Amino acid sequence: SRSHRIAVIPGDGIGTEVVPEGVRALRAAADAFGIGLDMVEYDFASAAYWQRHGTMLPEGWFDELKDYDALFLGAVGWPDVVPDHVSLWGSLLQFRRRFDQYANVRPVRLMPGVTSPLAGRGPGDIDFYVVRENTEGEYSSIGGRIFEGTERETVVQETVMTRTGVDRILRYAFELARGRERRKLTSATKSNGISQTMPYWDERVAAMAADHPDVAVDQYHIDILTAHFVLHPERFDVVVASNLFGDILSDLGPACAGTIGIAPSANINPERRYPSLFEPVHGSAPDIAGKGIANPVGQIWSASMMLDHLGEPEAAAAVLRAVEEVLAGDRAALTPDLGGSGTTASLGAAVAAAV
Amino acid sequence: SRSHRIAVIPGDGIGTEVVPEGVRALRAAADAFGIGLDMVEYDFASAAYWQRHGTMLPEGWFDELKDYDALFLGAVGWPDVVPDHVSLWGSLLQFRRRFDQYANVRPVRLMPGVTSPLAGRGPGDIDFYVVRENTEGEYSSIGGRIFEGTERETVVQETVMTRTGVDRILRYAFELARGRERRKLTSATKSNGISQTMPYWDERVAAMAADHPDVAVDQYHIDILTAHFVLHPERFDVVVASNLFGDILSDLGPACAGTIGIAPSANINPERRYPSLFEPVHGSAPDIAGKGIANPVGQIWSASMMLDHLGEPEAAAAVLRAVEEVLAGDRAALTPDLGGSGTTASLGAAVAAAV
Ligand SMILES: CC(C)[C@H](C(=O)O)[C@@H](O)C(=O)O
Ligand SMILES: CC(C)[C@H](C(=O)O)[C@@H](O)C(=O)O
Repeated sequence: SRSHRIAVIPGDGIGTEVVPEGVRALRAAADAFGIGLDMVEYDFASAAYWQRHGTMLPEGWFDELKDYDALFLGAVGWPDVVPDHVSLWGSLLQFRRRFDQYANVRPVRLMPGVTSPLAGRGPGDIDFYVVRENTEGEYSSIGGRIFEGTERETVVQETVMTRTGVDRILRYAFELARGRERRKLTSATKSNGISQTMPYWDERVAAMAADHPDVAVDQYHIDILTAHFVLHPERFDVVVASNLFGDILSDLGPACAGTIGIAPSANINPERRYPSLFEPVHGSAPDIAGKGIANPVGQIWSASMMLDHLGEPEAAAAVLRAVEEVLAGDRAALTPDLGGSGTTASLGAAVAAAV
Repeated sequence: SRSHRIAVIPGDGIGTEVVPEGVRALRAAADAFGIGLDMVEYDFASAAYWQRHGTMLPEGWFDELKDYDALFLGAVGWPDVVPDHVSLWGSLLQFRRRFDQYANVRPVRLMPGVTSPLAGRGPGDIDFYVVRENTEGEYSSIGGRIFEGTERETVVQETVMTRTGVDRILRYAFELARGRERRKLTSATKSNGISQTMPYWDERVAAMAADHPDVAVDQYHIDILTAHFVLHPERFDVVVASNLFGDILSDLGPACAGTIGIAPSANINPERRYPSLFEPVHGSAPDIAGKGIANPVGQIWSASMMLDHLGEPEAAAAVLRAVEEVLAGDRAALTPDLGGSGTTASLGAAVAAAV
């Protein structure tokens, strides 16, 4: 029977609470569809590991992880112990870069049973993808300070975009749009204000559009685009964006669709040279960590995306159906963020049972 | 009697349609309150000027404008004629920089008569300010391309933050918060991903917070902050942000409060060494330009902010009250974006009459 090797990395805060529920759903799907899952758990990429070792990852992490079929991550970040930019640049952002997971794919969907904060929107009204460039752009380690600690203190940070990096994410997004019914692609830009990189982004969008005449293309500056997410979410099908703009849109989109708590993401290396990484959009949420009330659906939906990527579309669909069934069912069974009185574990168990 | 000299710059597209309504409201207020207004109109900072002269501004623009008491701008940008980054860097962004208008102040308020896209929100529920750094940060002219036109093409863009630039906008925002009832300040950051400039921003916020113990401070990464705008807009009082983040939040905020069409902005040089600039948040809107249906309220509300800055608080309040009265009145009198069947001119006339 088919078998997949998965590295499980719970990380920090509610990551450690929702990952077990993702694993539970994975086991249920594996049992139901006769799939072998070899899951190995790692304690690195966490503040606890940092406290013991002074680094976020062990020296040999790349070789240790590179032959897995996928990485299943919770959330990283515990600012009371280690500053966020240190913990994230020391773990998640390394995974994305070193494993060349350049396509960060984030579905935005108003699910049955979930209430949108937008008036008059029901399931089916919001259903699109944010495709985020995941390795370059505004997230760059280049930069630093001069005249430190003085009145002349100046800090610079370099955004870097490359032909390779921009074209491959655009191609990925155009192909995704091409395979969907509406065949529509929206590009997030800010070429009126950001004078070098964003006009370049627009040029490459235009070039890629010429190669994809069957995809309808439009573009908006990021400021007005966020407004349209709120005012006209039904307009969007595939939204492609730079690293930072994609980061913003993939939190705003799920908020418009009710909650960040259920939003999944896939950090994909499309060439499959390295493992892809699956994680919820939400973070470690220090404010609710340890209470057992975190919503595990983002993690479980990420598990579904992982199964799909592993070539298990039926198991993936079963997990997503189970999520939909539970969300649309008894509201009391849901976690408090969805208006219920359930716990992380009870909601996770309900989904696993529905698989 | 008091008298003020104002440079009026309609710009492009709907800028040329809404500015006359702003002027009409200004004249009405001047009459009612015995204020002298000396308004001089300029045709530069427009695509038409660009077509004739090949530049957005005449050579002597700085000296021509620097002694005005204020600048009253419509909107700049007509991408069919001149690329946005060329027209904006050649006009509006020059004004902001050369006249050191470092505080871009943008009220976000759900007005009577306006429907929020957010379920269950009424007037009073959304009422805060976005204070945007307006001269440095992500909007920088530093950068360029290497290996142009080849597969190795690489584009860089430098974000620059300075102690001077960051501290003065934070101080402005803290002082604004201090003068309000809730005394609450929210900082927009992204220090987990943007590794140099945003951790610096956070440090300066912490330092400024220590100097303002009477202001309650919190901070959110920009991604989750956009989500909170949609899910919990009532939480915000004064939101301070870098140039780019402020740009995004000051479109998203007004969208949550119903429409971008009514949102005003003040580009302030607090030291009054140079004229401040007042303009609506919306742009030139090529899609609806020339139809006479653009909403003039953003321009008129900007006129109110200008009167306030000029030391005419009563006239400013009268204009804002007139706006509120008309918005809360007969819906049919409003422009189509607000569900009415009125025109730019009829709505402008109604506000002027109410002044
Ligand atoms: C037109 C554009 C350059 C401008 C900006 O990005 O600052 C506008 O969006 C604004 O918010 O004033
Ligand atoms: C934690 C943070 C560095 C990360 C990002 O900005 O990419 C997160 O917000 C995300 O969206 O995956």
